Amino acid sequence: MRPEIITKEQLQKYWQGQRALTKRVIEAFPEEDLFNFTLGGMRPFSAMCAELSAIAVPSLLSITTNTPIEFNEKPSFTTKEELLNQWDADTVKIDELFPQLSEAQFQQNFVLFGSYDLKIQQHIFYFIDNEIHHRGQAYVYLRALGIEPPYFWETF
Amino acid sequence: MRPEIITKEQLQKYWQGQRALTKRVIEAFPEEDLFNFTLGGMRPFSAMCAELSAIAVPSLLSITTNTPIEFNEKPSFTTKEELLNQWDADTVKIDELFPQLSEAQFQQNFVLFGSYDLKIQQHIFYFIDNEIHHRGQAYVYLRALGIEPPYFWETF
Repeated sequence: MRPEIITKEQLQKYWQGQRALTKRVIEAFPEEDLFNFTLGGMRPFSAMCAELSAIAVPSLLSITTNTPIEFNEKPSFTTKEELLNQWDADTVKIDELFPQLSEAQFQQNFVLFGSYDLKIQQHIFYFIDNEIHHRGQAYVYLRALGIEPPYFWETF
Repeated sequence: MRPEIITKEQLQKYWQGQRALTKRVIEAFPEEDLFNFTLGGMRPFSAMCAELSAIAVPSLLSITTNTPIEFNEKPSFTTKEELLNQWDADTVKIDELFPQLSEAQFQQNFVLFGSYDLKIQQHIFYFIDNEIHHRGQAYVYLRALGIEPPYFWETF
C-alpha cells in the first residue's frame, strides 16, 4: 500500500485538536470582551466564532448529503455559555459527519455555499486555516486585554 | 490504489500558497512598522517572520539530511528588502528540499530542534499552522495601522 501523507482519521483528529484549542481561547475571554472587544475596526471574537460555526457543520452536512446550502453566519448564541455549548455540539456533530466522507471524496470537487468550487480536501484545510487565522487574531485581543492566551501548541 | 487525502505535491503547493500570502502581508507593511509596530506587548511582525524563517528551511534540511539542528531565530535581515529576499530564497529552497522527503517519511517520527518528537506530517502541518497563526496577528497589526490586508483566500 502506498503510504499516506495524512490519513482521514489523522485529519479529523488534527481538526478537532485545533478546535479544542479554539475552545480554550473562547474560555479565556471575559464574556463582555468576547462580545465587544475589538482592535483596528475588526469584529469581536464572538462574531468570528459565529463564522467558524456557520462553516464547519453546515459544510459537512452539505457535502455528506450532497445538498446545496447558503452561508448564514448569524450567531445562534448571545452569551459565552451558549457559544461554548454551540462549540461542543459542533464538535460532536463533526465527529459524526466527518467519518461519513469517503476517502475518494477528498480529491473530488464540491461547490460549497453556492460559489466555492474546490476539492473537498481543500475545503477542509481552508476551514482549519480560517479558524487558525481568526484565533491568531483573538490572541492579539487577549494580549491587548492583558490576558495570557493558552499555549498555541496545545492542540489536543 | 487507495485514494489519498492529500498528496505530497498538493501539500507542497498548499504550504507554498500560504507562504505566498504571507509574503503579500510582509509587503503590505511600511518598513518602519514591520520592525517596530506591536500590540499587546507582542513582537513586531518582522520578528515573527524571523521565527518562521528559522523553522521552514532549517527543519527540512534537518529532516532530509537526518542531522540534528538547534533552533536559532536571530534574524538574518535588518530591512524589509532583506526580509523579502530571505523569504524568496526560502521559497526556492523549500521547493528543492520538500520533494526529497519520501512519502513513507511523513508517517515516521522525527525529533526536531532537539525536542519535538512528532510524525513528519505533524511537523509540516505545525509549520503551516504557526505561519497562519502569526500572519493572522499581522492582520490585526495592519488593520490597527489603517492598512487593508491582502485577501485571506489569495493563497496562490
